[in-house]
Amino acid sequence: RVNAARLWSTLEMMAQIGGTPAGGVTRLALSDEDRIARNLLRDWAQEAGFNCDVDSMGNMFIRRAGKNPSLAPVITGSHVDSQPLGGNYDGIYGVMAGLELLRTLNDNQLETERDIVLINWTNEEGARFAPAMLASGVWTGQFTEEYAHARADRDGITVGEALDAIGYRGEHPAHAFPIHACYELHIEQGPILEDDAIDIGLVRAAMGQRWFTITLDGFAAHAGTTPMHSRRDALTAFAELALKVEAIGYQHVPDGRATIGMANVTPNSRNVVPSRVVCSVEFRHPQIEALDAMEAALYQAAKHIAARGVNADVERIFDYAPIAFDAACLARSEEAVAALGYSAIPMVSGAGHDTCYVSKIAPASMIFIPCEKGISHNEAERILPEWSEKGANVLLHSVLSAAQE
Amino acid sequence: RVNAARLWSTLEMMAQIGGTPAGGVTRLALSDEDRIARNLLRDWAQEAGFNCDVDSMGNMFIRRAGKNPSLAPVITGSHVDSQPLGGNYDGIYGVMAGLELLRTLNDNQLETERDIVLINWTNEEGARFAPAMLASGVWTGQFTEEYAHARADRDGITVGEALDAIGYRGEHPAHAFPIHACYELHIEQGPILEDDAIDIGLVRAAMGQRWFTITLDGFAAHAGTTPMHSRRDALTAFAELALKVEAIGYQHVPDGRATIGMANVTPNSRNVVPSRVVCSVEFRHPQIEALDAMEAALYQAAKHIAARGVNADVERIFDYAPIAFDAACLARSEEAVAALGYSAIPMVSGAGHDTCYVSKIAPASMIFIPCEKGISHNEAERILPEWSEKGANVLLHSVLSAAQE
Ligand SMILES: NC(=O)NCCC(=O)O
Ligand SMILES: NC(=O)NCCC(=O)O
Repeated sequence: RVNAARLWSTLEMMAQIGGTPAGGVTRLALSDEDRIARNLLRDWAQEAGFNCDVDSMGNMFIRRAGKNPSLAPVITGSHVDSQPLGGNYDGIYGVMAGLELLRTLNDNQLETERDIVLINWTNEEGARFAPAMLASGVWTGQFTEEYAHARADRDGITVGEALDAIGYRGEHPAHAFPIHACYELHIEQGPILEDDAIDIGLVRAAMGQRWFTITLDGFAAHAGTTPMHSRRDALTAFAELALKVEAIGYQHVPDGRATIGMANVTPNSRNVVPSRVVCSVEFRHPQIEALDAMEAALYQAAKHIAARGVNADVERIFDYAPIAFDAACLARSEEAVAALGYSAIPMVSGAGHDTCYVSKIAPASMIFIPCEKGISHNEAERILPEWSEKGANVLLHSVLSAAQE
Repeated sequence: RVNAARLWSTLEMMAQIGGTPAGGVTRLALSDEDRIARNLLRDWAQEAGFNCDVDSMGNMFIRRAGKNPSLAPVITGSHVDSQPLGGNYDGIYGVMAGLELLRTLNDNQLETERDIVLINWTNEEGARFAPAMLASGVWTGQFTEEYAHARADRDGITVGEALDAIGYRGEHPAHAFPIHACYELHIEQGPILEDDAIDIGLVRAAMGQRWFTITLDGFAAHAGTTPMHSRRDALTAFAELALKVEAIGYQHVPDGRATIGMANVTPNSRNVVPSRVVCSVEFRHPQIEALDAMEAALYQAAKHIAARGVNADVERIFDYAPIAFDAACLARSEEAVAALGYSAIPMVSGAGHDTCYVSKIAPASMIFIPCEKGISHNEAERILPEWSEKGANVLLHSVLSAAQE
């Protein structure tokens, strides 16, 4: 069993790095806060006697050697980056539980057959740099390194520049090694486990996602002198589009999601009819056919905007297919849950995770714990210490079982 | 007659200060670009032998002495600040034409009975600091200096701090002196004069304006795990409000205007259901009754947003009454137009101007020249040198006639 108090204290320390007045955290990928959190993780790993390697995407690899270096290792991990005004558990919980796992094996002087590698994946959130899961995407061959290094944030800073700026561009190319099994522990980010008073979610699948960047181009005009009917207002066009995107989501309930999370107005001055709005759109659904229908409806909605004299350019920047996790991996976690006397249900993840990409190249699955009221991507994200402990124990036994094979 | 080439060259020089790649200008109030433009104006004034005083709001006063210092002066002026991605003539044309007027009187060694004072008003646009016409508002007693100094930009920098930062907080309090007559020369910012091939607009009135800041508070949630029906999405609520505001504008055509120029989303991340949108709303109309109806409809629309679980806080930050200009001032400009052989029509301004506030305490009117296709608050704003010349000549003769009384 893990040392639950030690695990909780690492979470509390990490919550200080990028901590916000409302009790959340803003620790954007490759920011200075990310650098500080990475350095702390590396220091803790080294104190526990592990090496920490960094690849060309800034992914961090903390390896605990097994008896047999020729066997493919078991990997686990998550991410230390956060959303702007995000929570204290999304991502960082899986990394700290992985560290706690390694420390627990040390405490028990437990030798495993296989190496165990704890990974911190760069830019999982997709908040500073789109798309999400960028670095696990490169590592698993979904994106080229060139593409990923050139992705830019709102200020035009690229991933490559940001890696250099915080000193986390490693020399080894980001490229997967053979993997025996992969586990990721994460908060559910939804309300089901708490509502049903279940300890553990055994994640058998994850929804697909399609992300778009839409640029609406109208014409800047004086708010006082320009009559209503001669405007080419990019903002009212955006409003029409936003309600249509929402309607697309409602057409695919209960599983579908349609969200505009980001919108930037130009010139963004009170008395200027806006010339331009750049916004995101994202759809999610467990079925590809539904995603196709949502995407088609988006193009249709964008076309209607032309009637306003506003041009809509729709660029799909992310096509993340629904995935199913590995049955053998899930079976180990099920056994762990039974042995520990916890309750569990199978689940589908509405969120994307790095382990979804890993599942494309190796056996993988995920373990969820409840989070209060399902609140996530929000400073009010909360978990209880006992939830945290149970998840870490299931991770420990799942990984250990795989590492002894 | 003015020296049209000299006037045009000053406009070309000013267009360099804050010049944008697309040929417009970003010279926000009290920015470094504003400082450079102010210094250039002051240097030109001093080279021509005039003092330049600055008051506690940063308003600049360039005085050409008349024969009789006990008589109330004639004033003219406009503003050197611009919109973000604004045009090369809005405001700066009136200031440069005022400078050209003073230079022309010097060239002709013409002595006037009354002093003539050229004024550069601070923060006319209301782009960096809301509301517009802030400093003429203080000078004419519409706002207190304390209120104005505390207005903050998006980064929390106040007007007082920005005045200090560029060295333009003068010692004399911003307070009007007795005025015999006030003229402001400006581009029309609408299409009427060009469409009708008229040289000069004699502005007899200006529309009223009401400005609001609206804060929509929902709840940040994960875009993947949060079902459509359990969202409290501040952005879709904003979209609904924006279309209602547009409809309010259409309910008051042809004269009414309803505009959302600014909207800022929090946390503004692609995969987070937005917790907050802060936006502007502004209405314009020549009749107070119509403005009252528009405002009432806005409160109604904001109430409806509650059905989305989103709270709408509506704050009115600017109530700018419709005004009528002075008949005697207009008559001098009409005479000037006739003497110069130009064409002119009476007009109503959809834009607000510093001279609207001056008209509350002294006889005042405005002179408009055409601008191409009515494009303004846009980098594509254009005028022809001959339009510029004609306007400056009408200003010269209007001011001169008043200054000899
Ligand atoms: N787990 C998580 O919040 N990942 C961010 C990517 C997504 O929005 O699915
Ligand atoms: N003339 C001008 O554009 N003034 C800015 C204030 C307004 O929007 O009316």
